[in-house]
Amino acid sequence: MLGRRRRLAILAEAHFSPLDAKTAVGVLRYRADQVAAVIDSTRAGTTAEECAGVGGSVPVVADVAAAAACGADGLLIGIAPQGGELPAAWRAAVLDALERGWDVLSGLHVFLGDDPELAALAAARGGRLLDVRRPPVLRSVAAARASRVEALVVMTVGSDCNVGKMTAALEIARELERLGVRAAFVATGQTGILIADSGAAVDAIPADFVAGAIESLVLEAARDAQVVVVEGQGALHHPGYSGVTLALLHGACPRALVLCHAARRGHIRTASDAPREPPIPPLADLALAYEGAASWVHPAAVVGVALNTLGLEAAAARSACEAAGRELSLPATDPVRFGARPLAEAVRQQLGRTDAPHA
Amino acid sequence: MLGRRRRLAILAEAHFSPLDAKTAVGVLRYRADQVAAVIDSTRAGTTAEECAGVGGSVPVVADVAAAAACGADGLLIGIAPQGGELPAAWRAAVLDALERGWDVLSGLHVFLGDDPELAALAAARGGRLLDVRRPPVLRSVAAARASRVEALVVMTVGSDCNVGKMTAALEIARELERLGVRAAFVATGQTGILIADSGAAVDAIPADFVAGAIESLVLEAARDAQVVVVEGQGALHHPGYSGVTLALLHGACPRALVLCHAARRGHIRTASDAPREPPIPPLADLALAYEGAASWVHPAAVVGVALNTLGLEAAAARSACEAAGRELSLPATDPVRFGARPLAEAVRQQLGRTDAPHA
Repeated sequence: MLGRRRRLAILAEAHFSPLDAKTAVGVLRYRADQVAAVIDSTRAGTTAEECAGVGGSVPVVADVAAAAACGADGLLIGIAPQGGELPAAWRAAVLDALERGWDVLSGLHVFLGDDPELAALAAARGGRLLDVRRPPVLRSVAAARASRVEALVVMTVGSDCNVGKMTAALEIARELERLGVRAAFVATGQTGILIADSGAAVDAIPADFVAGAIESLVLEAARDAQVVVVEGQGALHHPGYSGVTLALLHGACPRALVLCHAARRGHIRTASDAPREPPIPPLADLALAYEGAASWVHPAAVVGVALNTLGLEAAAARSACEAAGRELSLPATDPVRFGARPLAEAVRQQLGRTDAPHA
Repeated sequence: MLGRRRRLAILAEAHFSPLDAKTAVGVLRYRADQVAAVIDSTRAGTTAEECAGVGGSVPVVADVAAAAACGADGLLIGIAPQGGELPAAWRAAVLDALERGWDVLSGLHVFLGDDPELAALAAARGGRLLDVRRPPVLRSVAAARASRVEALVVMTVGSDCNVGKMTAALEIARELERLGVRAAFVATGQTGILIADSGAAVDAIPADFVAGAIESLVLEAARDAQVVVVEGQGALHHPGYSGVTLALLHGACPRALVLCHAARRGHIRTASDAPREPPIPPLADLALAYEGAASWVHPAAVVGVALNTLGLEAAAARSACEAAGRELSLPATDPVRFGARPLAEAVRQQLGRTDAPHA
């Protein structure tokens, strides 16, 4: 992971649940073989599977020392709080890990490498502070260059943050490979980068260069792939993150979109002092908004729905997928629960079409 | 300017024309009393008015030494190239200014203060490197808090970059003051910041926090003003900058929009290796796109058109404004050439309405 194989301790103190510990859950789902333990003293003695539904028998332990006893040799900050600061209580764990000479991997907006105390300790003990959100030095302004690639570019877009856009993109790319299609996953957030060992955390890039960064990643990925599956970010209807969403849409120039939604969510999550919880529009309206916004630069069509049915019974989850599919007359599935095959098939059907599907 | 009055030399080497030297022209139009000279060796011996149509008799000179002879005691980098790097040829001028102990003001994406040689020279000679694009340390995620302010929030939006959004906002705010309305101008780009002595260069802020930054500025400006006029950035149809545009729209939550367009421009300007020059949609389509995008978070209506008629004869300019007004059934003017009164009146008519005008 990020340069070499490790046995990671994932720090998720007091937050190790599927909704709170997005990075922890993503890494456990796709890189469990590189995880030695999860640190959450409030859940110590359980397993990852019991707490988060992923990660099998990976133990949950109380602190860095206990994780070391499980064979860990690196620390990963496993949550991404709004605003991105390092919770004060977690600093002790980072210091402990650095004392042991471990590398510390972080997706926070605040860069651990810029903290003089942490940097000095890392240097003294031989560990490294790997800030995966640190923006690339290269800066370019997008100019719809990704609209020219021969590969089919697909992007996952959503009704809100944290609804499953990264997971849907990973599952679709995997399923395309199973169908014999050369697919590349392009990571745009810290968890995706940790899983893919490449990508760019676009939300930390100076705003003028976000579209340019994803454009470069798509151009590179398209060289060897028939399909490039780009992890979307944010949501067009989110008051804080919509700019990132649109920059990705116009930088990547996807031809096909997969609409992601959490089945039980009715409102967009904003800060607790926000004037109101904005309602999530109907899926059909969301699809029109995304297709409309894409068309300002390059036409795209929604080709399927990825529904995150976490918290629903199996029967209710199946009904929810069927209802979403009916609403948009498109394939709909929960790619984690029921597999991504319908979405991969829908994407494969677009292959070879050189014009935009509905344009 | 930025803390104290200065007599500035504006560096615009080989680029001192109305379209190339956006920052130089903006500062000359609104702060000419603080400009001692413009440096452009290719136009030395002329005046600002002759080169750029603003700035009256401010002399254009060949180098920093000549500007010093005109009484300059500070250097302002007067252009903002795509990508934001300091042109190599300009470095000598910056070094010369620092040798003299001057402050150097820069709106470039690359921070002069981070350059060890420049920083050392500034420190040795007692000058300062003022990077107006350096992002604020405070980081917040927007949550439509600006939708609650009592003041009427107006934003200028456009068909492309560099069509007159800052100028329109400044002229509307000025004209509102003349009409007896307490108006505040909120700067969002480096030139606006130099003119207003406050604001944030939103395009240099990490993408997650752009909407939050403008939200904070609007909340602050709304305390003392009846109308807050926000300088828009970029364009929803620009492949490189649309994300910044949408972040501003959703962070500021304007209720009224003024659509800005350059009368002679038919295509969006992108890099020379771009696959195509995207055509600018008809004004009516642009208005619908902006109102639609705003409505995802907070409804807004276009209330007027600011047409930049640079390069047109007076009669053609008047016809262009009339045609734009007819197309949208709204007041239209070139605020620089014909005054901003019709736009200020249109904004004033919205005062006191608590719901969105067309929502």
